[in-house]
Amino acid sequence: MDQTFTFDRLKNFTRNIFTAMGCPAEDAELAASVLLKADLRGIDSHGVARLIGYVRLWENKRINPTPNITIVHETPSTAVVDGDAGLGLVVAPKAMEIAMKKAELVGTGWVSVKNSNHFGIAGYHAMMGLDKDMIGIAMTNASPLVAPTFATERMLGTNPIAVSIPAGKQPPFVADMATTTAANGKLEILQRKGEDAPLGWIQEKDGSPSTNANELKDGGALLPLGGDREHGSHKGYALGSIVDIFSAVFSGANYGPWAPPFVSFLPLPENPVGEGLGHFVGAMRIDAFRPADEFKSHMDNWISRFRETKAVAGKKVLIPGDPEREAELERMKTGIPVNEKVVEDLNEVAKRLGVVF
Amino acid sequence: MDQTFTFDRLKNFTRNIFTAMGCPAEDAELAASVLLKADLRGIDSHGVARLIGYVRLWENKRINPTPNITIVHETPSTAVVDGDAGLGLVVAPKAMEIAMKKAELVGTGWVSVKNSNHFGIAGYHAMMGLDKDMIGIAMTNASPLVAPTFATERMLGTNPIAVSIPAGKQPPFVADMATTTAANGKLEILQRKGEDAPLGWIQEKDGSPSTNANELKDGGALLPLGGDREHGSHKGYALGSIVDIFSAVFSGANYGPWAPPFVSFLPLPENPVGEGLGHFVGAMRIDAFRPADEFKSHMDNWISRFRETKAVAGKKVLIPGDPEREAELERMKTGIPVNEKVVEDLNEVAKRLGVVF
Repeated sequence: MDQTFTFDRLKNFTRNIFTAMGCPAEDAELAASVLLKADLRGIDSHGVARLIGYVRLWENKRINPTPNITIVHETPSTAVVDGDAGLGLVVAPKAMEIAMKKAELVGTGWVSVKNSNHFGIAGYHAMMGLDKDMIGIAMTNASPLVAPTFATERMLGTNPIAVSIPAGKQPPFVADMATTTAANGKLEILQRKGEDAPLGWIQEKDGSPSTNANELKDGGALLPLGGDREHGSHKGYALGSIVDIFSAVFSGANYGPWAPPFVSFLPLPENPVGEGLGHFVGAMRIDAFRPADEFKSHMDNWISRFRETKAVAGKKVLIPGDPEREAELERMKTGIPVNEKVVEDLNEVAKRLGVVF
Repeated sequence: MDQTFTFDRLKNFTRNIFTAMGCPAEDAELAASVLLKADLRGIDSHGVARLIGYVRLWENKRINPTPNITIVHETPSTAVVDGDAGLGLVVAPKAMEIAMKKAELVGTGWVSVKNSNHFGIAGYHAMMGLDKDMIGIAMTNASPLVAPTFATERMLGTNPIAVSIPAGKQPPFVADMATTTAANGKLEILQRKGEDAPLGWIQEKDGSPSTNANELKDGGALLPLGGDREHGSHKGYALGSIVDIFSAVFSGANYGPWAPPFVSFLPLPENPVGEGLGHFVGAMRIDAFRPADEFKSHMDNWISRFRETKAVAGKKVLIPGDPEREAELERMKTGIPVNEKVVEDLNEVAKRLGVVF
């Protein structure tokens, strides 16, 4: 059973938890905004459901609540940022601010981040460019859960890519996707509900197909977008690898199987090859290519033409970002449904940190 | 039956054909190099098999053999290039040169191109950065053959993305992929062989699954990477859309269903929304992020660790670019096998342009 809470209640509680962890007020507010954006947009796996995970990492001293976030190297259009083991929810938006400042000056800005932690939904950071007429891009590596094509070993995270593109009268185009068939969060939701997964999402530890949503606990793995070789899983594997390299090899974070796990009960990998987790964010000023009004009027045309695409009976063609935007409008009005197991977790967190839920 | 030719023979012939079309010597040499790179790398669909297609477009006055390629707008890290209806095989490498020059100055360079034509394999352009210790990125929109998730209408091209990343002692990481389950070229190969396609590559005109490799001739469509909604086709659709927007809405080329068809027997779409086809290329100087030697030594570690991934019996985990590099080594030695129907086409082209094959 789900319980429904208002956005304000969950957001205030989340902010108070981050404050209790020792985050400065401004950072706690930002981190709560990023985390809650997932719940609002219907990406239930990445919102308050993960709050207990962040708390446990902090308890294990893997999250620094008062990081000194610094630029360690830069050129006019690039920077590498050291997140000082801060919350990715805080480090990533600050990196995106740097990217946007560079885009203002030289057209585009690209920032690779090391020594960070999980950053919530990639879409939040990408969408920061919308108000400034910038295309925003955000990606991150993550706990190794994904087996490359033909592999039986987990080598990559679900390594999401988000791209946000402003339009004029139409709402923006916002793609936010794991580079796997299905995000790990989708699996976590099935686990909480005790349901099976479709074939093509996961494999057993020997590489054979599985529908067991708990297969990862027995050494199984998520599959790259495409599912199997014949259907292009080598492309999903390549995309996840590119995210890993841009986020971690560019910056000096841990990559591939060395990426630190999000769950605090797993030990950190031995012989780390870098510092913490990595992100990669970018901003492109639209008028660095074409007058923004002209671009946005063509985006309006692009979006309305694609919305009118002839579709199979009973279906319609969506624009990336449509379902999330509709969820956001709905949930601001009617509240956010939270799974009962997550509610238990939130009560547990409240008790542990002495914060009223 | 295939017939085998040496690289030199096919390259010289291709260059002579482009020269006969009126291309300046330097452009004909460049275009032949780009086209032949596909044959060398085992991407048979994008090499000499397409030569007759370029010739037909030129005969229909859709390709300008002596284009005046110009920068129409720029900032320190960006440019929009007008290809003046030239061969994409010539326009794209010139755009990539501009991107690399900008990367030298400000760290990264990003060029969107309008008024171009098909540019061969995306990988060629991305790989131009390798010698300069730059990551190269190349993408293009293409003839509309792909149905978005739930659609029955063809709205996007197979819109490939290539990303090339230098390593140190290891060969580079080179991903070059259509954003569909399978590239159209793979289908063309099945058509020539009279074979069926696997389920999940194509659909009938009403949206139902098909294995008929000729389905596109009956109004069918290719499917976005993922295949169907449950397996993430909305992600392949989003990726193809991003390529379309970066390549064509940024630059002022035709996008979506307005993208001009590669086959000359199809009319140009009515009421064009831009000029010609679009590309998007980018270059990122490695040392704009991190000393190149340090990066390349970590890439060596990344590549060797991924190569050693535990695999299912009888298989090994490959690094993107491995099969193409092996094909290139092999074919430089033993020659390039060409399908008999393609050989017929080459003889036809030779006759039409009065060039010895």
